[in-house]
Order: sequence, then structure tokens, then C-alpha cells
Amino acid sequence: MTTEPIAVLAGGVGAARYLRGAARALPPEHITAVVNTGDDWRVHGLAVSPDLDTITYTLAEAIDPERGWGLVDETWHALASLGRYAAVRPPGSTAATEWFGLGDRDLATHMYRTARLEEGADLTTVTDEIRRAWDIATHIVPMSNDPQATIVETSDYGDLAFQEYFVRHRHDIAIEGVRFDGDAELSPRARNVLEDASRIVIAPSNPVVSIGPIRHLPGVDELLTDRRDDVVAVSPIVGGAALKGPADRMLRELGHEPSVEGIARWYAPIAATLVIDTVDADAAPAVERAGMRAVVTESVMSTPDIAQRLAAVTLSK
Amino acid sequence: MTTEPIAVLAGGVGAARYLRGAARALPPEHITAVVNTGDDWRVHGLAVSPDLDTITYTLAEAIDPERGWGLVDETWHALASLGRYAAVRPPGSTAATEWFGLGDRDLATHMYRTARLEEGADLTTVTDEIRRAWDIATHIVPMSNDPQATIVETSDYGDLAFQEYFVRHRHDIAIEGVRFDGDAELSPRARNVLEDASRIVIAPSNPVVSIGPIRHLPGVDELLTDRRDDVVAVSPIVGGAALKGPADRMLRELGHEPSVEGIARWYAPIAATLVIDTVDADAAPAVERAGMRAVVTESVMSTPDIAQRLAAVTLSK
Repeated sequence: MTTEPIAVLAGGVGAARYLRGAARALPPEHITAVVNTGDDWRVHGLAVSPDLDTITYTLAEAIDPERGWGLVDETWHALASLGRYAAVRPPGSTAATEWFGLGDRDLATHMYRTARLEEGADLTTVTDEIRRAWDIATHIVPMSNDPQATIVETSDYGDLAFQEYFVRHRHDIAIEGVRFDGDAELSPRARNVLEDASRIVIAPSNPVVSIGPIRHLPGVDELLTDRRDDVVAVSPIVGGAALKGPADRMLRELGHEPSVEGIARWYAPIAATLVIDTVDADAAPAVERAGMRAVVTESVMSTPDIAQRLAAVTLSK
Repeated sequence: MTTEPIAVLAGGVGAARYLRGAARALPPEHITAVVNTGDDWRVHGLAVSPDLDTITYTLAEAIDPERGWGLVDETWHALASLGRYAAVRPPGSTAATEWFGLGDRDLATHMYRTARLEEGADLTTVTDEIRRAWDIATHIVPMSNDPQATIVETSDYGDLAFQEYFVRHRHDIAIEGVRFDGDAELSPRARNVLEDASRIVIAPSNPVVSIGPIRHLPGVDELLTDRRDDVVAVSPIVGGAALKGPADRMLRELGHEPSVEGIARWYAPIAATLVIDTVDADAAPAVERAGMRAVVTESVMSTPDIAQRLAAVTLSK
């Protein structure tokens, strides 16, 4: 197994579990997560970065294991107190948003991030400070220091900010398209990591709205294409369905097949290898026909041991 | 007693107690507090208005009675969680400020205010929404919709933001001066109220850093001087000392006498009447010599009944 620098393109929960496994398979200081920030948004005046925080809290073993997001042993007094204000906000105001879960302890993270960004620190710097505050050895790097918003286009509700789609509507509505607004650039540290890593892993995250925003940044797909032999993707689709979240539904609604074969066609231009679950072993030939080498292993990370073995497979020579 | 519109120039705790008494002495919808916002500051990215909130929470009977600020039955999880980040913030950063008390439920107020201000609402509008959220009949109006920062000048620590002086240093340091930074204007609603009120009460607040910022706004001292016969001040100094806070020490360090006579000299240009406590009855002639009519009554608002009687005195014909 390689011990060179490893880069992991990462979204939220699935990526976080993969990274936890990788940090057991490899010296964690050799691993850098390049994390989607297309879900970031401003709520209550605070700068919230859901995927960065899910990864940070997971690697710190502080994530709530049931919800998969937010801190364990959390309290919700601030959020509950917003109800009083939701009752008086004028029509059209989105203040006192009650449907986005922010625990009291979690708020401290957003308060710190917001204050540091207001002081002029870039998101890369602040994210690294937060990583050190939680005593995490794995490096965590935002894809960009600039805003780039993932917008979900729907016929019933018009354009939705990602969190409105994902949390407010519980990703239970039909979509017509996804677009990325903003002129963000790949962050310098992310670029260095993607250029220098001996292997680039695409974590089992939503290919459209978690990995998609990273690929949308100028130069990223070109960089990955150039390094295609070093890029390994872990399929986020197992047995025709996403383990968590709306990846299967989104792929279907956008005209793609929610299967490991569909994922192979999606990633073939930028990655040479696709890791698929044992339940999809029969589809390995179809993956190969779609242009990717298929590696079959247990990929449902129900325990840290399984996550570690999955990471070891993705990092093996 | 008048039942016409009444305006009250207000700072924090003393003004809040006076207003609670006034709302028992008079139909509260006839009363408008014009509140100092010179203490307002931005912390953790949130817009915090300490005097507005002290008045709101007091009139809602939700204030913590022991502290005199913040909400009763409060929890402090967010604040406690900042410690982790204070340990990693770089030198010179003021992020993760731990010395400024923000309870979890109180945070909801700042989150709402910040979100509404970011939506473009002015502070007058947001303050009124918050008042309605707490079901308060007394009107609460910020002195200005614009920022105007009270700066405390010290020789030992240089220029301090008001909260640094007041909370971080517990107002236990020598000051050399006070100044007000910004080009704020009196808010339109505050101007209407001060022009239309049948009586203007200067609450027993710190004359330098609570009432001073209001008087510093262009036109306010002229307006008060023109209406001098309708202006009644309640002395914040009782028996030579401030009941709460640093008013006595500040007056002395700025070259003024911390006595009812000193207060009379301070307010004589803008107010015809000074209400002083019974313990200062002997000083009534000195108040009159300083140019103000002296009214002697019990003024230490240790109970709502006393506050109500004090308010009735200030509002009597």
C-alpha cells in the first residue's frame, strides 16, 4: 500500500466514513480531503459549511452516529428559541429558519468560522484551524476559498439553494437540473494536493451534488483526466441505490442510470478504476466495458473496520 | 398624570427597570423607549444590541434577575464550546471571544437580528419585530439605524470598544475620555417620538456612555434644549455612587462630580427637572442652584412597586 500523499475528493457522510477508514489504513497526516463547499450557506448571518463539518466531526469521533451530521450529545436551545421570531418575521423573510438543524455546540463552529472570515482569513486557513481545534491529523481542505453555490432546479419550486432542496424538502422532490453559480477557483492547497498526490480517491459521495461542484471548478476535470491512471472512484451506488441521500434519484432524473455501470460511464473520463460492492460483482464486466477497471470489495461502511478495509483496497498498488 | 405619548431616553438595566415601572403606571402603548445603541457590536459575526435586549427581556419578564442581563433559565453550551477554538485562533484574532456572555437562547435573538439586517431591514424595524415576538406593548426604538460606536479611551489599554471596557475589563480600569465614532443620524421614529411626546424622561442610566451616545446624535441636544420644560431626568447617582455600573467613577475621571449636584450641572442645559433619591434630599437646594427643579422621591428600584411609583412621579403634572 502506498504511503505517499493521498487526496480524497469528498462530500459529506459517505466521504467522512471513508476518510475515517483511510486514517486507520494509512498515517492520517498523509491524507488530504478536498471537500465540497457547494452546500455552504449563510443562515442567521453565520457561515455554515456542512460537508467540512461532517468530515471534521466524524474524524474527531464527535459526530452524532444516528443523525450522521452534527455533534453527539447536542442540545437545541438556540434553534428552539427561533420559533418566537419565526412568528413575527415578515412575508418573504428567511430569518429564523427553523428547519435547518443547528445545535448549540455546533453553533460555536459556525460562530468561529464567521468571525475568522470577517477578519479576512480564507476558508482554507479557518478550516485548518478548526481541524487543529479538534486534534485531527488528516488534512481537510475546502475545494475553494470562493463561494460557489449548488442550485437545484425544480419545476414545482423553481431554483432552490441546495440546503432548501436537501434539508427543507428532504430531497423528496423531482429535479430538472443542477447548476453551480459563482466564479470560484480551486483553492491553491487543493490544487497542490491534487497535483502531488500519488493517488486521488473519489469518495463514495453523490456524484452530482458532492463531487460535481469540485469537478466544476476550472481545471479540475482536466487535471483528473491527465492523472486518470492514479484516480480511483468508490461507487456511491450499491445494488442500484444510494446508501444515503438522493444520488440514485438525482441520476435517474438527470437521465443517467443509477447503477455501478452508470457510475462507470459517469467517471470513466477522469478515473481509471471503480471500486464496487460485492453485491454488484456481476456488473464488473459492464463496468469494464464502460471503460473502468472494476475492483470488487465490501463497500458498505457499517463499521470502521469495513471502512478501513475499503480504504486499503482503494490505496493498494 | 399624563397619558399622552411619553418618550424615555434609555440605556440598559436602570432604564429597563424604570420602563417596567412606567408600563405599570401608564398604558404601556403610550410609552416609547429611545434606546442607546452605542454599545452594539459585532461578535462571532452576529449583531448584538445589549441595551435593546436588556430592555426587551426586562419588559417581557424574561430577564435573568440576578445577572440583570440575558435570559433567565439560560444555558451556555455554545459559549463553552468556543474554548476549543480560542486555543487555535492566531495572535491578533478576536474570534472565539469567550468573555462576552451569550446564552444559547439569547443567541436566537442575535441570529434573528443579524439575518434581518442582512436582508436589508433597518434596526428600527427589526427591533419592533423582536418586541412583538416577546408580546411587549411598550414601544422600543433604537436611537439610530446607523452604527455609532462608543469608544473608551484609556492610557493603559489604548482605545477600547465599549464591551471590551465594560465586560472584558469589568469597567475596573481608569479612563481618559469617551468618544463616539460614526456618522449616525437619529432614527426617524426616535425623532418623531421626541418631537411628539408630552414628556421626555431621561432614565437613570449612565449619563456618559448610555445617554451620551443619544445626545451625540446631530440635533438631539438642540431638540431637548427646545423642549427643556418637558424633560425630566432621573439621577443615576444616589448618595454619591452609581447603583450599578461605572457612572460615578467615569464622571470623576472625566472631571465631573459624582453627586446629584454634578448630575444637575450635567443635565441642566437640556432638562428642567431632576428626580433625586430621598437619601439626597439635603442636596435639593444645590440641584436648584445648578439650574434644575429638584423632585425628591424613593428612586432605588428594588421592587416593581417602587419603580412604578418612581415612574408616576416623573410623569406627574
